[in-house]
Parts: sequence; structure tokens; C-alpha cells
Amino acid sequence: MAGWQERLAGVRGVLLDISGVLYDGGAGGGTPIAGSVDAVARLKRSHLKVRFCTNESQKSRGELVALLRRLGFDMAESEVTAPAPAACQVLKARGLRPHLLIHDGLRSEFHQIDTSNPNCVVMADAAEGFTFENMNKAFRVLMGLERPVLIALGKGRYYKETSGLMLDIGPYMKALEYACGIEAEVVGKPSPEYFKLALQELGVEAHQAIMIGDDIVGDVGGAQQCGMRALQVRTGKFRPSDEHHPEVQADGYVDNLAQAVDLLLQHTDP
Amino acid sequence: MAGWQERLAGVRGVLLDISGVLYDGGAGGGTPIAGSVDAVARLKRSHLKVRFCTNESQKSRGELVALLRRLGFDMAESEVTAPAPAACQVLKARGLRPHLLIHDGLRSEFHQIDTSNPNCVVMADAAEGFTFENMNKAFRVLMGLERPVLIALGKGRYYKETSGLMLDIGPYMKALEYACGIEAEVVGKPSPEYFKLALQELGVEAHQAIMIGDDIVGDVGGAQQCGMRALQVRTGKFRPSDEHHPEVQADGYVDNLAQAVDLLLQHTDP
Repeated sequence: MAGWQERLAGVRGVLLDISGVLYDGGAGGGTPIAGSVDAVARLKRSHLKVRFCTNESQKSRGELVALLRRLGFDMAESEVTAPAPAACQVLKARGLRPHLLIHDGLRSEFHQIDTSNPNCVVMADAAEGFTFENMNKAFRVLMGLERPVLIALGKGRYYKETSGLMLDIGPYMKALEYACGIEAEVVGKPSPEYFKLALQELGVEAHQAIMIGDDIVGDVGGAQQCGMRALQVRTGKFRPSDEHHPEVQADGYVDNLAQAVDLLLQHTDP
Repeated sequence: MAGWQERLAGVRGVLLDISGVLYDGGAGGGTPIAGSVDAVARLKRSHLKVRFCTNESQKSRGELVALLRRLGFDMAESEVTAPAPAACQVLKARGLRPHLLIHDGLRSEFHQIDTSNPNCVVMADAAEGFTFENMNKAFRVLMGLERPVLIALGKGRYYKETSGLMLDIGPYMKALEYACGIEAEVVGKPSPEYFKLALQELGVEAHQAIMIGDDIVGDVGGAQQCGMRALQVRTGKFRPSDEHHPEVQADGYVDNLAQAVDLLLQHTDP
């Protein structure tokens, strides 16, 4: 593999995944990953543009940013690309009225959306909210529609909390897809539209941007498919087998965000 | 399509699905489907051999048969092929110790099975037991195994209760498959091994047997793949689109079990 100088040449903007890169969620809000608070601060003081690009769909952006600020991160709501606001744009553009299969923490993101007489289902990472009753309700709404539309905020398999691995939205999306014989539309990583939105908000071209994430498929593979470069951190849900993934090869593997920022500051030109 | 005489020629044994053919489950146990109690009685008095072949995995066979007897059906536990006892045979043969993701009603079927230090997951239709916590626990067991083994008692998409459609085990099986990147082994319809077991217990050859079910894929398609004939009833989870299924064509569609039995008694030779 080429040296870092070559691999990072021309990078002007950085997209940062949040969960598993900045912090691990868990009881009491979670724990910052060692070195990440300082790494974000250094990145923001540098010549590089920075934006946070998350699939977080349990909490509203406001709640998420408040939590991260409590953990010490310098971050504003306006710096975060999140799937719920992106989904609201889709719903409005297509005149869709969703039945919401979401965590209560996310409801505020949809307060401007008409949810009467639903003609689609929007699902997010509902975690404990993925009860049989809630799943069955969403299933029945879909089966009652002539052309069922299921919009999923991400399709991640799992993520890591301080207590261990947690099922993400993807498995539950697959469950409803199979039950109804349909395919969901994904708003969030690795959807190309979503990465393009984040890039637009970051304000650089794809070839000038690098994604840093802990998900070899959702973060690294998705960003690369949009023409970006991507680093995988060995934190969060990283597993050693990710470095030999059959389909995706990151542009680099780093121990954590701190190391990624060291390399970026050292090997990119102001 | 050929006449009934031709389509039913040589039939000597009948496999009956239970849910959606004999009764619809629901609050208070459920309701017999009109004419089915009498149809089972007539069939059992006839020259045809009869066996019940179910994917029921919420209740033990004992509980299921007790419920059906209360609803008026003439039935004994020894006449029922059910997936849990079949799974126990598999577990014993392969030295597998399961983590059980099942409904409490099914636990008695596994009382002879060692569940310490699990090296596989067995999942059944857990219904309300498919909480996030229970799903996540099974997921973590699988992710902790070097070679994860997931055994699913059926893979049905949904079934019908008196209150409406209900998610079956299949969607939850797909969820764990996707989360872990594995493929489950199915014990139950439409697995060929399972149909062969039922045939063996029925005591006729595949070409002499006919399956009667409400599931165009699990019952009809599965039985046909084993060389049996199969009728679909227009009760239970039947939907009009089943009669134009892209892959499966039943040997006949009948309004209900009563009509199927009329035809069988009229067009098969003693």
C-alpha cells in the first residue's frame, strides 16, 4: 500500500462517524473513546473542514449533540448530518404520511410531519422499542397498503455499546422486508444520496473528502462508492476480520480517531 | 387443469396443516374454521390415512392438542408432526447445546436437552417473547461462537389470528441471519427433511400423499418439492394473489378443508 502522504494527498474535508469513533454509547450516556475529544478539537482548529455524518436514529440531533457536549466534545447541531432530517425531506417531497416505528427520543424530529392515515412506514433504531407489538403494528400498516413503502434510517447490522454489541436497525428492516416481500428504501449511510448530502454540507468535492468510521461496509464502503476516501478505526464495532473484508478495503486502518487526526495533520497541506 | 378425479388419483394419505386450516388462533385459544371439525372427523373415518403436519412452535404438542380437542377436534398428540421434537433429534445427533429463543409454552419440549454453555441458538415462534432484549441475547450468543449455528423452527412470514395478521418466526430468523451474516437451518416446513419425517410417520409414499395447507410457499410449494401433491385452502392466511403466485401452483384451490375432504372422499378409491 502507498505511503500516507500519497494516500491522503489533496484531502480538504473530513466526515466523522460518531458512534464507535467519538464515543461508545451505553448506560448513563456512554464514554468518549480515548483521545477522541482532543482529536476533534485539533481537527476543528486545523485547515481541514469537518462535519459529523451519523446514522444515529435513536436520538434527535439536539439530544445527541447535548450528550456529546457533556462528554467534552466541541460540536454544534448545525455540524451534524443525521438521517431523520434527511427522511423528513423525502417525506415532504413525496407527500408521504408515515407510521413511525421509532424511539421516543426521535419523535421531535418529525413534529412537522403529518402522520394521519399513514401511507408508508418510517423505521429508525428503536432499540427496546422493537417490541413484537410495535413490529406487528408496522407490519400490518405495510400489508394494508396497495404499494407498501418502507423507509429505513440506515441498515446497520449492529453497533457497540459499553455493555457489548447491540442489534441495529438493519436486522429489523430485514424482518419487515421478508414479512411483506418488499425492499426498504434506506436514508442514511451507505446510501449515496445521504453521503452526497453530507458532502454538500461539508462543502468539498468527493475526491477531496475522507470518511472516518468504524463500519467497514456502511462507512468505508459507502464513502468509497461515492468517490471519497475512507479510513477505518480499530474502535467501536471494529473486528480484526474487517481488515480482510471480502469486498471492502479501507484506504487505511488506524487504531483510533486520534491516530487518524495525527496522520491527517501531518500529511495534508494547508 | 385436469379434473379432480385425475388430480387426486392414487392418493392414500393426507397431511393436514393446522393453523389456518383447522382453526384460527387468537384470544381465548381461537376459533375453529367453519366445517373443519366435521371434515377432520370424516377424514379419519375414511379409507385415507391422516396426519397433522404443523409448524406450530409457540406451544408444545401437548398444549396444542389439548386446545384443539377443546375446540372439538378429534386428535391425539401421537398424530402430530411438530418442529420442536424434530429439532431435539437434530440437537442430540449433533451434540448441540442450544440457547433457546422460544415461547415459554414450548420449553417443556426441550426438558431433556442440555442448555448449559450453549454452542448454538434454537429459535421458535416466540411472538411477544421477541423482545429487543431476547433478540439481542441470542445475537450475542451467536456472535460469540466461532461457527455460529442458528436453528429455526420454520421460516413462515406471517400467520392469521382472529385479530389479524401476525408476524411469524421467519422475519425474526432473517433479522438474526443479517445481523450475524449467517444462514439459519430450518427444521419445519418447507424443509424436505421435515416433510419426509411426516410422510414416514404417515406411512405412505410421497406420490400417494397430499398436503392441505393455507401457505402457498411453506405448505404447497414445500410438499410439491418432495413429490407430494398439495391443495391450498382459501382460509387462514390465504390471499387471492396466492392463486397467481409467480413460483408455486397448487394442484388445486379449495374454499376450505370441508371442500377438500368432500373432493377427496368423492374422487379417491378405497
